[in-house]
Amino acid sequence: MADNKALTTRAADFSAWYNELIMKAELADYSPVRGCMVIRPNGYAIWEQMQGALDAMFKETGHQNAYFPLFIPQSFLSKEAEHVEGFAPETAVVTHGGGKELEEPLVVRPTSETIIYAMFSKWIQSWRDLPLLLNQWCNVVRWEMRTRLFLRTTEFLWQEGHTAHATEQEAEEETLRMLGVYRRFMEEWMAMPVVTGRKSESEKFAGALRTYACEAMMQDRKALQAGTSHNLGQNFAKAFDVTFQTADGALDHVWSTSWGVSTRLVGGLIMTHGDDNGLICPPRLAQWQVVIVPIWKSDEERAKVIEAADRIARELRAAGIRVHLDNRDGMKPGAKYYEWEGRGVPLRLELGPRDLANQTVMLARRTGGPKESVPMGGLHERLFGEMDRMQHALFEAAKARREAATLRGPKSKQEFIDFLNGAGGFVYAGWCGDPAVEAEIKEQTKATIRVLPDAEFRSPDAPATCIWTGRPATAEAVWAKAY
Amino acid sequence: MADNKALTTRAADFSAWYNELIMKAELADYSPVRGCMVIRPNGYAIWEQMQGALDAMFKETGHQNAYFPLFIPQSFLSKEAEHVEGFAPETAVVTHGGGKELEEPLVVRPTSETIIYAMFSKWIQSWRDLPLLLNQWCNVVRWEMRTRLFLRTTEFLWQEGHTAHATEQEAEEETLRMLGVYRRFMEEWMAMPVVTGRKSESEKFAGALRTYACEAMMQDRKALQAGTSHNLGQNFAKAFDVTFQTADGALDHVWSTSWGVSTRLVGGLIMTHGDDNGLICPPRLAQWQVVIVPIWKSDEERAKVIEAADRIARELRAAGIRVHLDNRDGMKPGAKYYEWEGRGVPLRLELGPRDLANQTVMLARRTGGPKESVPMGGLHERLFGEMDRMQHALFEAAKARREAATLRGPKSKQEFIDFLNGAGGFVYAGWCGDPAVEAEIKEQTKATIRVLPDAEFRSPDAPATCIWTGRPATAEAVWAKAY
Repeated sequence: MADNKALTTRAADFSAWYNELIMKAELADYSPVRGCMVIRPNGYAIWEQMQGALDAMFKETGHQNAYFPLFIPQSFLSKEAEHVEGFAPETAVVTHGGGKELEEPLVVRPTSETIIYAMFSKWIQSWRDLPLLLNQWCNVVRWEMRTRLFLRTTEFLWQEGHTAHATEQEAEEETLRMLGVYRRFMEEWMAMPVVTGRKSESEKFAGALRTYACEAMMQDRKALQAGTSHNLGQNFAKAFDVTFQTADGALDHVWSTSWGVSTRLVGGLIMTHGDDNGLICPPRLAQWQVVIVPIWKSDEERAKVIEAADRIARELRAAGIRVHLDNRDGMKPGAKYYEWEGRGVPLRLELGPRDLANQTVMLARRTGGPKESVPMGGLHERLFGEMDRMQHALFEAAKARREAATLRGPKSKQEFIDFLNGAGGFVYAGWCGDPAVEAEIKEQTKATIRVLPDAEFRSPDAPATCIWTGRPATAEAVWAKAY
Repeated sequence: MADNKALTTRAADFSAWYNELIMKAELADYSPVRGCMVIRPNGYAIWEQMQGALDAMFKETGHQNAYFPLFIPQSFLSKEAEHVEGFAPETAVVTHGGGKELEEPLVVRPTSETIIYAMFSKWIQSWRDLPLLLNQWCNVVRWEMRTRLFLRTTEFLWQEGHTAHATEQEAEEETLRMLGVYRRFMEEWMAMPVVTGRKSESEKFAGALRTYACEAMMQDRKALQAGTSHNLGQNFAKAFDVTFQTADGALDHVWSTSWGVSTRLVGGLIMTHGDDNGLICPPRLAQWQVVIVPIWKSDEERAKVIEAADRIARELRAAGIRVHLDNRDGMKPGAKYYEWEGRGVPLRLELGPRDLANQTVMLARRTGGPKESVPMGGLHERLFGEMDRMQHALFEAAKARREAATLRGPKSKQEFIDFLNGAGGFVYAGWCGDPAVEAEIKEQTKATIRVLPDAEFRSPDAPATCIWTGRPATAEAVWAKAY
């Protein structure tokens, strides 16, 4: 039951457009439970594609999946001082089980460091047990005050990697390796360009030594933190007494990392590529890469056209393309086009009696342009080519949008403020390193430091002074308003 | 860090054997949270293989995955009278969120019928929206008093299918279709034979019209309920007001089903196939189907042997075999054999300098028998053949064990009691249909009716009288002690 009303345009109200698109494409729905969403099949299928790609990348880099309990004893959370401060205020707490009040309340995991390090302390004895490279796909709960479908929900789905290493250097390498994996996934699969870099102290993960992040720019010029990778140093190892015997017989605490991405990525995909007609899903992550819509008038035509469409669908599937044949009765082709467009299917093939006679199909692209009649022979190769081009074009378009909405090296504090309070976007400027400056900028512009960018994203000439104070800059920073 | 102590034998103490095997093979571990387990990578990999196979079968039968909230408002549970009676006593309850007491407590889902039907009532309007065929992979929580790793834990992982149909017949067909999918998975993938049939009223799902189940026999002759499929009739549709307009314009409640299997299946796999040396994993579900152990003395030998082993591993992987190359230094081949044996890897290839010179490898099977020198040429075909034979042999052995531990048509009530109180097993006998009889039998023998078996499992001659009361039998029943 797709909604047939046109979407509010992005230009008119980006936020309304986003919510309406999700409803129209049936990606998700509000639930009767405060702040919790229902992920509908069309949305969940995108998450499944994301999971498949990421999981393969995690395994290629030596990680194994495991599963740790949903519940965490409240006392565990308190063992790492910064961690409890960061997470305790937003926990859901189980106080009763099996009809009785519990002796110690259980927290529904907001993240699993504490329960995992409790297990690591049992499993890790020697340098031979290291590195220990685990990942878990699961649900987590954070009691958010203001929620938005996919972007910020009380419960969300994610993966959390947790690794333990013998040296500080190995932990730092792992942290950056997984940041790189995330970046590659976001760019190559989601067609979503990101800026990577380190978070400032005020934005880092509660309990981490250093947090790195991938920051993407949405079409409304706001930043989305799309994934984070934390070097936890020995903080959790010390809190949970995770020690190991080194190769030369000494005793040391392990060095650890954690990293995660969530169903928020689905929101990022929508806001990166969607248009006023609905979702545009990059071909590599689309549940259906191609939809075939048969066209007929008489019953005789119907039988012939559906038979041919079915044969084409089977051939394309055999070639490895994800194809859906929409042979619903009682629905006009135009209505089907409209529905699949809203749902973001990259390519549509229309097949009527005339196409059949000519041994051709009509090809329409979700990203626009004229329809094209293409021969049935060699169709799968043609479609693979179309998908590659579309995947690439979506990435390039997103990157061009980001660059057009990026200001590097504003000449003055006023220009900096005007940019952020105006159309907005990413602004690169020098920062003196003072958290008070971050706080002041946030107050005046609602913008925060998204990252201190990695070398490849930095401006050719490092800014000498802080854009806010004029003091010597300790780093270049990227500021933006963010989700 | 595998434990090197020999396992307690199955004959000496089946329950101790089971727990020790899980620890030795590092399949799971106890957690600091009451009744919750940690699924370690070796155990989780089996679950991932199971998920992959089942998920493909669900999709082939037209189901789509979705995700519904972890939390359920307490009032929802009460809407279906039998359902709340069955589940309320074992729920975990969240009373606080974000530092405040909630207006209405939230139950951590023990199963998701209630939250799902609340959404169905929103999504389903017309017969055109039916059937609605959904599945969800998730965690659920039931506050169990006595827990056992994999078999009964406070939190467990499962899938729950939920479908809505226009007619009673379609719902019944779906219920039986999914029972059949489960049976096929258990037999063809797990090599675990099952008896299928209907549950008696006292054993059916709380809120169902009829419950069907797959019952497997473990090596200690106890039954394991391995999967259930419920025809829910219109019970939940009425409780949650899920109505639709029929094709001829009337208004009706939908007919619905639900069905699930869980991480309990990993326990079933262990208890079906394991031996006194550890796990035996059927090849189709093994994380590693083949492990290669290179053997060397000198550094020169080491380089050559590892190079060859690596080449073989790559060739086998390219052929679609899941291979692990164990080239750990500082560990003797014998210790590696022992470890992989405990973890249940179906096939082991040993490769030393002499094998290399002869262009052969030494093949050892987890299920026993003499090692065999086999040529490197055509190795993958040989291994596929070995795996097929092992998969088949494991199934046949399990089936033979079950048949040997099954008593059909006991001559007397005393023989029935003696069988159940003796070695135990499955006993087929007539039942008058009286729940009081079930209760009495349970009290005297601890056995319950596992199923009223489907036609194909029934005895050639239907029993005329109830084994307990001598009254006319309404059905043949399979009794057994169960997990």
